[in-house]
Amino acid sequence: MTAAGGPAVPTSTAAVALRPLPLSGSRVVGGFWARRLEANRAALPLGHERLLEAGHLGNLRIAANEATGTAQGASFWDSDVYKWLEAVAWEYAHSPDEGLLDHLRRLSRTIAAAQRDDGYLNSAIQLRGEERYARLWTSHELYCAGHLIQAAVAAARATGEVQLLRVATRFADHLADTFGPDRRGELDGHPVVEMALVELYRQTGTRRYLDLARHFVEARGHGHAAKPGFDPSHYGDPAHYSDRLPVREAETLEGHAVRALYFAAGATDVAIETGDAALLAAVRRQYDTMRRQKQHITGAVGSRWDGEAFGEAYELPPDRAYAETCAAIGAMQWAWRLLLATGESVYADQIELLVYNALLPAVSLREADYFYVNTLHRRTGARGDVQRSPAHGRRPWFNCACCPPNVMRTLAGLPAYLATGTEDGLQVHLYAQSTLTSGGLTVDVETDYPWDGLVTVTVREAPRREVELALRMPDWAEGSTVDDKPVAPGGYARTRRVFQPGDQLRLRMPMPARVLVADDRVDATRGCVAVTRGPLVYAVEQPDQPAGVILEDLRLDPATPPRPEHRPDLLDGVTVLRADGALARGPAGSPYLPYGQPPAPARSTDITLIPYYAWANRGPHAMRVWIPRRNA
Amino acid sequence: MTAAGGPAVPTSTAAVALRPLPLSGSRVVGGFWARRLEANRAALPLGHERLLEAGHLGNLRIAANEATGTAQGASFWDSDVYKWLEAVAWEYAHSPDEGLLDHLRRLSRTIAAAQRDDGYLNSAIQLRGEERYARLWTSHELYCAGHLIQAAVAAARATGEVQLLRVATRFADHLADTFGPDRRGELDGHPVVEMALVELYRQTGTRRYLDLARHFVEARGHGHAAKPGFDPSHYGDPAHYSDRLPVREAETLEGHAVRALYFAAGATDVAIETGDAALLAAVRRQYDTMRRQKQHITGAVGSRWDGEAFGEAYELPPDRAYAETCAAIGAMQWAWRLLLATGESVYADQIELLVYNALLPAVSLREADYFYVNTLHRRTGARGDVQRSPAHGRRPWFNCACCPPNVMRTLAGLPAYLATGTEDGLQVHLYAQSTLTSGGLTVDVETDYPWDGLVTVTVREAPRREVELALRMPDWAEGSTVDDKPVAPGGYARTRRVFQPGDQLRLRMPMPARVLVADDRVDATRGCVAVTRGPLVYAVEQPDQPAGVILEDLRLDPATPPRPEHRPDLLDGVTVLRADGALARGPAGSPYLPYGQPPAPARSTDITLIPYYAWANRGPHAMRVWIPRRNA
Repeated sequence: MTAAGGPAVPTSTAAVALRPLPLSGSRVVGGFWARRLEANRAALPLGHERLLEAGHLGNLRIAANEATGTAQGASFWDSDVYKWLEAVAWEYAHSPDEGLLDHLRRLSRTIAAAQRDDGYLNSAIQLRGEERYARLWTSHELYCAGHLIQAAVAAARATGEVQLLRVATRFADHLADTFGPDRRGELDGHPVVEMALVELYRQTGTRRYLDLARHFVEARGHGHAAKPGFDPSHYGDPAHYSDRLPVREAETLEGHAVRALYFAAGATDVAIETGDAALLAAVRRQYDTMRRQKQHITGAVGSRWDGEAFGEAYELPPDRAYAETCAAIGAMQWAWRLLLATGESVYADQIELLVYNALLPAVSLREADYFYVNTLHRRTGARGDVQRSPAHGRRPWFNCACCPPNVMRTLAGLPAYLATGTEDGLQVHLYAQSTLTSGGLTVDVETDYPWDGLVTVTVREAPRREVELALRMPDWAEGSTVDDKPVAPGGYARTRRVFQPGDQLRLRMPMPARVLVADDRVDATRGCVAVTRGPLVYAVEQPDQPAGVILEDLRLDPATPPRPEHRPDLLDGVTVLRADGALARGPAGSPYLPYGQPPAPARSTDITLIPYYAWANRGPHAMRVWIPRRNA
Repeated sequence: MTAAGGPAVPTSTAAVALRPLPLSGSRVVGGFWARRLEANRAALPLGHERLLEAGHLGNLRIAANEATGTAQGASFWDSDVYKWLEAVAWEYAHSPDEGLLDHLRRLSRTIAAAQRDDGYLNSAIQLRGEERYARLWTSHELYCAGHLIQAAVAAARATGEVQLLRVATRFADHLADTFGPDRRGELDGHPVVEMALVELYRQTGTRRYLDLARHFVEARGHGHAAKPGFDPSHYGDPAHYSDRLPVREAETLEGHAVRALYFAAGATDVAIETGDAALLAAVRRQYDTMRRQKQHITGAVGSRWDGEAFGEAYELPPDRAYAETCAAIGAMQWAWRLLLATGESVYADQIELLVYNALLPAVSLREADYFYVNTLHRRTGARGDVQRSPAHGRRPWFNCACCPPNVMRTLAGLPAYLATGTEDGLQVHLYAQSTLTSGGLTVDVETDYPWDGLVTVTVREAPRREVELALRMPDWAEGSTVDDKPVAPGGYARTRRVFQPGDQLRLRMPMPARVLVADDRVDATRGCVAVTRGPLVYAVEQPDQPAGVILEDLRLDPATPPRPEHRPDLLDGVTVLRADGALARGPAGSPYLPYGQPPAPARSTDITLIPYYAWANRGPHAMRVWIPRRNA
């Protein structure tokens, strides 16, 4: 079975609608995703080099007495090592490689040696002789524990190696001895330990880990995470830590986006394992509110640089979208848990949206460079200010390097998101060239998705009983057919019968380009349209436009549907869209003019759109997802 | 003569087009501004209490051995005391009051006692035993020196008291001994000392202060201000400190807005006093670029919370406008210097725009509460996160309390901005009920401005020679007349003759409401209109709308001109505007919908707009300056 930091694996007794496939039950065998996962695999050695060069590995080695020196960086740095190890574990499961296993073993030894006798482990805090848990609002000590646990569970499931799991359980035991209703009451400023403890409970069966996770979930919302005393910054604001309202009372996510999402995913895990219907209903309500009010069209979330935070409802600026890569990953993890719990396709739609348009844009097609912030709009000549500015383009690493190893582990674990199983069936959620197995039913999925909507599912092995093969019908898939029979978008196209090897299902999803607008309440995109095709959000980027076009002057004509054209030569092979538009330059001078002036003359131009995920692979250029419409 | 931290007073040898009036030459005698200045005067004792309570005064007293204790707060805190003292000085000039003078004298003694023997002074650094100038990118040591100098010059000019001026010159001498081409090369992270040193040169005639200011102006742009070594935050970014490009090469303001504006104003001072035409041309170009590309419709500047910074060109979000109060003040100071240097009315237009719509909104009508961040859009139910969030409403003080005393000193010095003089004339820039004197010409200005555009100027005394009375014609003042003769907007209506006491000029400026749109490149306000009348920008605020109106659903009909209605009972007396509009609620569900859906049915509604400066005086409510237009 798969998946710690990424997908969750409920216990057999948990009341869920769907179950993850076993780790071997989901393999990407070619096509679009094979190339992207191969690029991610190639990034893993680079990740190791960067962890070494930046000093993350050094901290642990010094703490393990394997090296000498002083601590570098922040007390959250260990977590990046753990995320990288989790990536190594998942990657090993898909293509066993002694080099990867050797990395895992060596680093596990280092980590074990760095751990204190009582189970505590944080290399920077230890090396600096800082008091444990004295500044939990910013120290990330339990956050690091969470990532350690997730890596350890992944390693155990993917490789059978349990050395890291022993370290993780010792740390978890120490946490259970230290925190809880009758013990220390503080909360870590950055959630993740909740998800991790539930997963450790699932892996080990030790109930106190679940109990501690439940405690952390229930205790939040009473101001136990904020910096004590008056602090005028985000550190003084309980909302920054999802700590303003108890999870059962909250109607919307607020504050620091990654913290809020990891916490919501952890709360969902607790709801699943404790059968807590009220808690599940609360987090579902919160997801729905987020989806309707606080999600960019790419699926990305987070609207504010200041505090790396959610904004108000409908505060969704394309240019200053924060859209942190880790937030997209957190949303995927949360959606996965809700998909398992409910079996509702809206959560799989979300995962697809996020994977293609919020996760994938965060990594370059080659060279393993990453975005921390995923803007939806880069102006001509934009200048990056701080290190994480997307105007700089992607970067190999960051001083706060949470995102690169998070992408690595998520892509390494991606096959787990393709499908789920039930006692009598298989549910295909993401369409990729793949082989999927559940309960004796093995199918080969062939498709040129996301470029083409034809998906052929061929049964390779089948049990001698009636089972159900369910194919997700994306919310955009109007006019689809399964074996020429119409199926509506939304939900699943279900075929229940006794399958024979060689049986085929043919799902055809038309993929016209779609021109979308945002709800009127989204102030930042008024008068603009965005273009999607199939699961992909498109963007205009400077290099694809005719010479002399200034992106700021571009207007898209929404009346003529953009036309797809596959370009195998471009950006590792993409289907571009050709649209009609115009160039209109507003008057210069004061930017504020009397209403009703005749519009400046416009001249027609062709517009080429590329998939948003592929932007910023040709240097820093102007780009926009939301394009002003002609004659708005 | 007037004005240190606010307006500048060029030397008699400086090549300027216009000269400030003497301090006694500009008095507000009634009307709109008398009430606002009275409220500011009433705030001064509160300012003293708050400086005492927060600990700012305590630091200086401890350093002066007048009290015991440890340093509170940050090393920029002294500056807030100095700004408050400057306010006291200007206020004393208008209405001498022994209580104010006593405050000034006592605090000057304290400050003198806190000063080190060699002239250095920073209470927090001294009390903490920190090394001087070791962290200039963040310590604000020269910034505090600058505000001390400005307060001291103001005190000398307004009261004749020179104790503070002696402290300031000793500090300036110490700075001149310490910094410069052959001395220390670092720069303060936060400019203001440039303006201050030039003003001290003007006050004392000591050339080395001007030379040091010129050095600081020319040295910036070579990375001497940024935090040394790699720093991934704004502290590592030279642009944050206007230190990326030399001032002569920069085309636009960037980075931290207040720093950039104070620096530009200081560079303008240097250009004026050294007769440096190339430097003057550079800062004029930068002002023009700012005005065209980076200024909110209210005149406010600063688009990014992160780094308190300018954004890219046309990045002007109403909801996340940073629009720091101090940035509006910095822009006023800069515009004033350019007005003196050039005599061009565009800079007086800017001052008027800023005073009414960027400075005045920062302070409540009563109770002396302040905005640090001046948003142009507060959503229904918005929740403030950090202390400075405008969603909280205005506050009496802030942990970083730069804005409140900056408003105090600027309003206390406001009469200086009303008019200027030349050898043979008087130029009236701002219309207020006032008495103005220049070169033997004294006039009484009577007007109900900003509610009414009739301005009557009556000559009280006149020299027996031909002089020129120039009345600024605001850029919005279409259809105006002076004594029934048409005059065009922009520039000055000039009347040159031998005036007799009792002579009158009648300037009539029609004040229809104007419906404006932004340049198409301003993405954040596309499809919206804003409404102005005379010098005032208007806004819709929840309490003025009919019951049941949700501000997010409001659409303004730009075809029908909004109708003015004076409401003496409302908000200390305002002219409101009545407009036609509609309520339209977009569809719910996913915020992203296919283009071309029929619009939701709209029902007509009345809309009432109030002057933007008066919002947030009835508790926290939804507000918008930019209103979606009907049928956009």
